[in-house]
Amino acid sequence: MTTPQHVIATYIIETSMPLLHAAEVLAGEQSTGTFVRVARESDDVRARFAAQVESVDELEPSAFAPLPGTIGDPAERRRARLRLRFPLDNFGPSLPNLLAAVAGNLFELKELAAVRLVDLELPSAFSDRYAGPAYGVAGTRRLMGRPDGAMIGTIIKPSIGLSPDELAEVVQELCDAGIDFIKDDELQGNSPASPLVERVRAVMPVLERHADRTGRKPMYAFNITDDIDRLEANHDLVVRAGGTCVMACINLIGLAGLEYLRRRSALPIHGHRAMFGAIGRSEQIGISFRAWQKLARLSGADHLHTNGISNKFYETDAAVLDSIAAVREPLLGLTPTVPVLSSGQWGGLAHATHAAVGTTDLLVLAGGGIHGHPDGARAGVESMRDAWASAARGDSVQDALAASQPLRRATELFGPARD
Amino acid sequence: MTTPQHVIATYIIETSMPLLHAAEVLAGEQSTGTFVRVARESDDVRARFAAQVESVDELEPSAFAPLPGTIGDPAERRRARLRLRFPLDNFGPSLPNLLAAVAGNLFELKELAAVRLVDLELPSAFSDRYAGPAYGVAGTRRLMGRPDGAMIGTIIKPSIGLSPDELAEVVQELCDAGIDFIKDDELQGNSPASPLVERVRAVMPVLERHADRTGRKPMYAFNITDDIDRLEANHDLVVRAGGTCVMACINLIGLAGLEYLRRRSALPIHGHRAMFGAIGRSEQIGISFRAWQKLARLSGADHLHTNGISNKFYETDAAVLDSIAAVREPLLGLTPTVPVLSSGQWGGLAHATHAAVGTTDLLVLAGGGIHGHPDGARAGVESMRDAWASAARGDSVQDALAASQPLRRATELFGPARD
Repeated sequence: MTTPQHVIATYIIETSMPLLHAAEVLAGEQSTGTFVRVARESDDVRARFAAQVESVDELEPSAFAPLPGTIGDPAERRRARLRLRFPLDNFGPSLPNLLAAVAGNLFELKELAAVRLVDLELPSAFSDRYAGPAYGVAGTRRLMGRPDGAMIGTIIKPSIGLSPDELAEVVQELCDAGIDFIKDDELQGNSPASPLVERVRAVMPVLERHADRTGRKPMYAFNITDDIDRLEANHDLVVRAGGTCVMACINLIGLAGLEYLRRRSALPIHGHRAMFGAIGRSEQIGISFRAWQKLARLSGADHLHTNGISNKFYETDAAVLDSIAAVREPLLGLTPTVPVLSSGQWGGLAHATHAAVGTTDLLVLAGGGIHGHPDGARAGVESMRDAWASAARGDSVQDALAASQPLRRATELFGPARD
Repeated sequence: MTTPQHVIATYIIETSMPLLHAAEVLAGEQSTGTFVRVARESDDVRARFAAQVESVDELEPSAFAPLPGTIGDPAERRRARLRLRFPLDNFGPSLPNLLAAVAGNLFELKELAAVRLVDLELPSAFSDRYAGPAYGVAGTRRLMGRPDGAMIGTIIKPSIGLSPDELAEVVQELCDAGIDFIKDDELQGNSPASPLVERVRAVMPVLERHADRTGRKPMYAFNITDDIDRLEANHDLVVRAGGTCVMACINLIGLAGLEYLRRRSALPIHGHRAMFGAIGRSEQIGISFRAWQKLARLSGADHLHTNGISNKFYETDAAVLDSIAAVREPLLGLTPTVPVLSSGQWGGLAHATHAAVGTTDLLVLAGGGIHGHPDGARAGVESMRDAWASAARGDSVQDALAASQPLRRATELFGPARD
């Protein structure tokens, strides 16, 4: 049971030990320290501090080879969903210290042939300490002047290598195309070849001129990822130039780095998930997106990459849709974070996505879907906006295609639209 | 070839694509952005910024199931060691931005059935920017008053739950036992049940009294892991009380958090690797210890956990010994980091460890090996010191057993000593 004084962590484990024994090894290792009692580990200590096995539900076995170093008879291997209850008092509402308990040494236990943290239930002490997003959906919409409908965005390509003048040209084209949002690539940090200061200098006048003319300033997420001590200066550079968003690669500055940035940021933070695959892709080890995104939201991510359906990466549509749903679920009263759909996105995916997620409170990023549209970027943006508006009205894909020339033209390149 | 202007990243991959094609997909995704050319991706851009495939060496196939979402015919799957050369100009000597290139989205590539970053060759620009350890082996020895021989340490157990008075008692026992080093458990951060300030208040007078009496102050690594904004205050608390070491869980504050702490720390930083298993245990995905430890050393870890032989966790002796060797290899002229051997350590492992690593510039942590010695903690410390001194002299295990009653007694509990 969830209480204000406990954290519940859910794992999928495989083990050749009896399931309850393996669960107790895990709980012991991650709380009072050892499965075997040591001196001064009194009943009182165990009662107050021991993690408790809340439930063990056996699952169908997997076909995976055990993780390296696993002990026990492979023929005895079983799989289970395991819920452990940790006293909040063991770590307090500190995300780094929470992680030591729920995601620390446990990945190295040789009793476990697989171990994956798949969910976390956190008490409100965490939202008392961590503010979460400052802008979220509503703040992002306000800053980009897009009060409703899917927010349509793109990534600067090529990822790296553009001169400031070329970058300004690309941004101008995208402004003219009616884009809501543009972001640096995660590979474009603050490199000698394209320093952040020069990118800001090149981009902002283009955005400002566009805003003067149209009343709308597209949001540009400048990638300010760098050492912790440089984050604030990088952020301030963007603020001073009139920018409206900073981007950070969460796993590269750390969740703790994101939280540090959040405390200083005057702008929405676009949270990129680069390196997430290292902990998230295997089904045998690591941390699921569902668990990780809670930590990222508490740490202040206004936007959070979820991938999109029909993407170029490894994730199935079901996994992506679960990620989007997870980011949209309420979390301790925090301001809602915007899911960011990207990779292989184009207008023809709007209906299928909308049917599954039921909202347009999304930032949908298309690279080829915009830059690569047969009639250019303007038609690319229109094709996406038309498709999302149609989906939001409840029209069919066929209606959308009949009504939108840019969407029809997009299908010539990207194939049939999905419904 | 390594040049001052390039980083070389080594991967083990599996793929059902032709190996060179998969290598080029990886190189493309992580540099100029796409395998397919986009507008403004000129020959000049590719020449300057594209990552180059340095070598592809086919390996024996593995027996693992492909990572989720992998495309291609499993029957065609091949395995290779792949070296990619990245222009430093793509990211500059910034560790977070380096990671975007060498360890970012690539883990999500569906062309790869396995992908693991196993090594990094970094140019001196990184050591120009990152100072590495401030104390390392020599500084640690000086502070703890142990000029030679293995440094013998232990972990406070139970991990959590001791009152300040009980903690002081344990520390007193360990001081009396002649210990060099004591550390908080990684589960003991700054919890409501045992705030750092109270631990410091309880522990430091014991250490100071011992130092007054003996001239030697054992080093106590206070676990100061917490939000970035609390690290400096936590560190300062330890410094003001006369402490000589702070401990941080590197993956929980992030490598960037470690680097932030390094810039402010007046003390050696004891680097714990909690959560490393999430990226390090699988042979199919993530980052090897050999690659990761370079980043941790650059970021300032004076001590770095490597695990020990015959440990309680999943790692083989060969893997542990490779980790210890990796930490001891020179890296860009940095001050040498102390490998920290822990888990299941006792005196009977000294000869086998020394034979493999050839040094006593190690911090060897024993929990049960000290607290659990049949004749108490003092005999536990003596058994370890005797064993390591014997090993360092080149004596045999039999000589050591003949000469040391505490070591002989240890074998009654822990079994035969290894040679």
